Amino acid sequence: MADSRFYTRAAPMTLARIAGIADGKPAPGADETLRISDVAPLETAGPGDLSFYENRRFAEAFAATTASACLVKPEDAHLAPQGVALVFCSRPYRAFALVARAFYPEPPSSGQRATGAVIDPDASVDASADIGPCAVIGAGAEIGPGCRIEAHAVVGPGVVLGEGTVVGVGASLSHCVIGARVRLYPGVRIGQDGFGYASGPEGHLKIPQLGRVLIEDDVEIGANTTIDRGSGPDTIIRRGSIIDNQVQIGHNVEVGEGCVIVAQSGVAGSSKLGDQVVLAAQSGISGHLRIGAGAKIAAQSGVMRDVKRGEEVCGAPAIPIRQFWRQQVKLSKLTEGKG
Amino acid sequence: MADSRFYTRAAPMTLARIAGIADGKPAPGADETLRISDVAPLETAGPGDLSFYENRRFAEAFAATTASACLVKPEDAHLAPQGVALVFCSRPYRAFALVARAFYPEPPSSGQRATGAVIDPDASVDASADIGPCAVIGAGAEIGPGCRIEAHAVVGPGVVLGEGTVVGVGASLSHCVIGARVRLYPGVRIGQDGFGYASGPEGHLKIPQLGRVLIEDDVEIGANTTIDRGSGPDTIIRRGSIIDNQVQIGHNVEVGEGCVIVAQSGVAGSSKLGDQVVLAAQSGISGHLRIGAGAKIAAQSGVMRDVKRGEEVCGAPAIPIRQFWRQQVKLSKLTEGKG
Amino acid sequence: MADSRFYTRAAPMTLARIAGIADGKPAPGADETLRISDVAPLETAGPGDLSFYENRRFAEAFAATTASACLVKPEDAHLAPQGVALVFCSRPYRAFALVARAFYPEPPSSGQRATGAVIDPDASVDASADIGPCAVIGAGAEIGPGCRIEAHAVVGPGVVLGEGTVVGVGASLSHCVIGARVRLYPGVRIGQDGFGYASGPEGHLKIPQLGRVLIEDDVEIGANTTIDRGSGPDTIIRRGSIIDNQVQIGHNVEVGEGCVIVAQSGVAGSSKLGDQVVLAAQSGISGHLRIGAGAKIAAQSGVMRDVKRGEEVCGAPAIPIRQFWRQQVKLSKLTEGKG
Repeated sequence: MADSRFYTRAAPMTLARIAGIADGKPAPGADETLRISDVAPLETAGPGDLSFYENRRFAEAFAATTASACLVKPEDAHLAPQGVALVFCSRPYRAFALVARAFYPEPPSSGQRATGAVIDPDASVDASADIGPCAVIGAGAEIGPGCRIEAHAVVGPGVVLGEGTVVGVGASLSHCVIGARVRLYPGVRIGQDGFGYASGPEGHLKIPQLGRVLIEDDVEIGANTTIDRGSGPDTIIRRGSIIDNQVQIGHNVEVGEGCVIVAQSGVAGSSKLGDQVVLAAQSGISGHLRIGAGAKIAAQSGVMRDVKRGEEVCGAPAIPIRQFWRQQVKLSKLTEGKG
Repeated sequence: MADSRFYTRAAPMTLARIAGIADGKPAPGADETLRISDVAPLETAGPGDLSFYENRRFAEAFAATTASACLVKPEDAHLAPQGVALVFCSRPYRAFALVARAFYPEPPSSGQRATGAVIDPDASVDASADIGPCAVIGAGAEIGPGCRIEAHAVVGPGVVLGEGTVVGVGASLSHCVIGARVRLYPGVRIGQDGFGYASGPEGHLKIPQLGRVLIEDDVEIGANTTIDRGSGPDTIIRRGSIIDNQVQIGHNVEVGEGCVIVAQSGVAGSSKLGDQVVLAAQSGISGHLRIGAGAKIAAQSGVMRDVKRGEEVCGAPAIPIRQFWRQQVKLSKLTEGKG
Repeated sequence: MADSRFYTRAAPMTLARIAGIADGKPAPGADETLRISDVAPLETAGPGDLSFYENRRFAEAFAATTASACLVKPEDAHLAPQGVALVFCSRPYRAFALVARAFYPEPPSSGQRATGAVIDPDASVDASADIGPCAVIGAGAEIGPGCRIEAHAVVGPGVVLGEGTVVGVGASLSHCVIGARVRLYPGVRIGQDGFGYASGPEGHLKIPQLGRVLIEDDVEIGANTTIDRGSGPDTIIRRGSIIDNQVQIGHNVEVGEGCVIVAQSGVAGSSKLGDQVVLAAQSGISGHLRIGAGAKIAAQSGVMRDVKRGEEVCGAPAIPIRQFWRQQVKLSKLTEGKG
C-alpha cells in the first residue's frame, strides 16, 4: 500500500466501476459488487487489491496471487487461481494504469498563490492555476487554466503554457511555447541559447540564437533534462513524446510524435527524429541527421549517419543491430581459448 | 523573423553601417544606403534581410536566395544571384555573428534589485548589476559592474564575479573566483566539493576539499553542467573556453584556453587539457591525464592515456582516429556475407 | 593554504593531539609539542604543515618535502627526509582525512531561519536545524536536529530527514525518507516519478508511481544527480554509498551498502546492486539486472547481463575485463601495418 504520508487514495470502488474505468468487462460470474480498495502489482497484491496479468514472465505470480481481482485478457483467464474476480480487457497493463490513476488522482489545481511567489503584473495567469512558493512568472507570460507551477520554477517573459501543464520544482523556461497537459520535471532547463559559435583565431564568438522551443501537447520531460532553443528555426518536441531524465536536446532539433528518449541520451543540433523513434539510454545522435519513423537506437549507441524508417541500430558508430551482434560473436571467437 | 514575444530587434541599418560592423567592404557597385532590417540564414532570408555564404554545402541556397544583402568572400561573389547586395569579408560566418549581435543586442543591466532577492549586507554588489527575483548573494561576495544575476541564482559567500558576467536562473556558485564576461547558463553547479574519499573497511571518509574553482574571462558554461572545486589545488577553466550542457568537470582539472567541450562529456579529477582542445559530445577523460594543445577527442570516446598535441583520437579506449576506422573496416569485413 | 575567503581554519594543534585525531602514534623521538598549523599534500606542504605519505608514486616528493610533520606507515619511515616529525599510522591517507576534517570542521548548525524561507506551519523542523534563504519546507515534513537546508532547496510534503543531513542549494526532494548525516549536493532531484508508461496506439500512458525513495545513513549524492521514486516498491540507497555528480538512478533500483557510483553513470529501473559495487564514470546498467557484491564496472561500460560477485567487467556490451583487453589486442594486431 502506498505510504499515506505521500499519497492520498480515493474511496473503494466496485468491480463494475473498475471495469468501466478499465474499458473492460467483468468475467462471467464475477461479483460486480465486489469492493476493491487499492491497486498493486502481482508480487505484492493481497485481499482488497486489484492487480493485472499480461506478460507470461509473471504466470507463476499470477497463479499464486491473493489479489481480490485481476485485469486479464480473456484467453489468459484459465491461468488465474480460484476466487480471483477477473475483469477482461484487451490490454491489461494499460487498463491497470487507468485504474491506478483513478485510485490516485492528481490533486486538481486550486488557484494557489503561494508565499514568496513573484508574478509580474504584466503576466496573464489563469485564476485556476497554482503558483508555488517563490515561483517566478515573467512579464507577458501566459499560464493556462489548471496549470501547476511548483516551488522555485521560473517561467520567463513571454512564455506560454497550455491548459493543465505542470512545471516542476526549480525548472526554468524561456523563449518557449508549451502545449496542454505537458509535464516538466524538476530542474528541467528549456529555452536557453544553444551551443553556436563562429570560431577563429580571436576565439569563439557566440552567434545570437533567435529561435524558440515549441513543445506540443502531452509531452513529458524528465528531471534535469536540457533543451536548447533554436538558432533561427525552432527546436520542436511533438505531441505525446516522452523524454527521461538528464537528456540533452540541441538547437533546431525536431523530435516527432510519440518518441521515447531514455535517460542520459543526447541529440545534437539540427537532427530530426521521425514519429515513434526510440532512443535507449545513454545514446547519442550526431548533428544534422535524419532518424526515420519507428527507428530504434540501442543503449549507448553513437549514431553518425541517417537511420532508415523502422531500422534498429547499435554500437558506436551505430550499425544495424544484427551486424553489431555478428561482430561481437566474431570478436569473441577470435580470442577464444586465449585467456 | 524572430518572435517579438522574446526578441527585440534594433532599428534598420544601412549596408555601409553593416559593412562596418562586419569588418567588411561593400562590393563594387553595391548600394551603400540600402536599408537592412534583419538577419537570417540563407534558407529563410527574404527581402530586407542580410544573410551570409561561406560553406559550399549551401551554394544552391545561395544561388536562389531572395535576401537583400549577403556577406560573402570576394572569391565567391560570382555564385550570388543578381540583385543581392554583397558585402565582402574574409570570414562571412563570423561577420554574420557580429551583425546579428548588433541587431539583437543583450539588454544592458540597469541596477535592478528584484522582489525577493536576498543580498547579504556584507556583500559588495556594483550599483549597475542586476539582481533577479529571489536571487541570493552571500556575505563577502563581490559582484562586478554590469553583472546580471538571474532569478533564483545563488552566489555563495566570498564568490567574486568580474564585469559583465551573467549567472543564469537557478545556478549555484560557491568557492570560486570568476572573471569578466563569463556566461553561466541555468542550473550550472560550480564549486561544490569534489568526489574525494579515503575508502577502507569503515567506509568512505570524505576528504575536505580545500581548493577553489577559477574561471577566467569570456568563458561560457552550459545548462546543468557541474564543476567541482579543487581538493587543495584549484580547478581552472582558462580564458575563452566554451563548455556545453550537462558536462562534468572533476576536482583539480585544468581546461586550457579556447577549449570546446561538447554536451554530456566528462573530465575526471586532476586531468589537464591544453589550449584549443576539443572534446566532442559524451566523451570522457580519465583522471590524471595530459591532453595536448589542439587535440581532438571524438564523440563518446573514452580516453585512458595521455593524448599528444594535435592528436585526434576515437573509441573506448580511445586510439588514433585512423586506427579506429581501420579497425571498424576490418571488423566489418570479417563478418561480411554472414547476415 | 586554503583561501580565507572560503575556509576557516581551526587553531594550531600539537603533534600529540594530531596523533590522537589520526589514531596514530608519534614516531620515537618526534617532538610531541611541535605545533602544526595546517594540512597540505606533499607537493605543496611547507613549514608548519602536516602532510602524509602512503603511495610510492610520491616517494620522491616525500623525500624532498619541507613539511614539518608527516603521517606515514612505520615501514616507510626510512624514506622521510631528516627533520620531519613523523606520526605512525596504519592508513596515512585516511588519517590525513581525519586531521584535515579537524582543521576545517563543518560549521555547526545554529537554528538559522533565513530571509525568504517558506516553512509550512505543519512541518516539524528541529530548532537546531538551519533553513537557508528561500528554502521551502512542505506540510508534514520532518527535519531532524542539526540539519542544514541550503538556499532554494525544496523539501516536499511528508519528507523525513535524519539528524545532521545537508540538503544543498536548489536541491528538490519529494516522496522520500532520508537518514542521518546524508549529504545531498546542489541540484539533486530525488523522488520525482519514474519513467513508467503503458504504451500503445493511443500513446504513452503514465503509470502512477506509488513508491518512495529510501536513503540510509551516511550516503552522499552529487550535484544534479537524479533518483526517481519507486513505482510501487521503493528505490533504495543503502548506508554509506557515495554517488557522484549527474548520475541517474531509475525507479525501484536498489544500491547496496558502501557502493561507489562515479559521475554520469546510470542504473535503469529495478536493477539491484550488491554491497561495495563500483560503477566507474559514464557506465550504464540495463534494467532488471543483479550486480553482485564487490563487482567492478569499468568506465563507459554498458552492462546487459547479471554480473557475479566480485567480477570485473568492461565494454559495451560489458564482458569480463580480461576478455575485453584480449579483444582490444586482437583487433589492434589485425590492423597492424595497414596505416
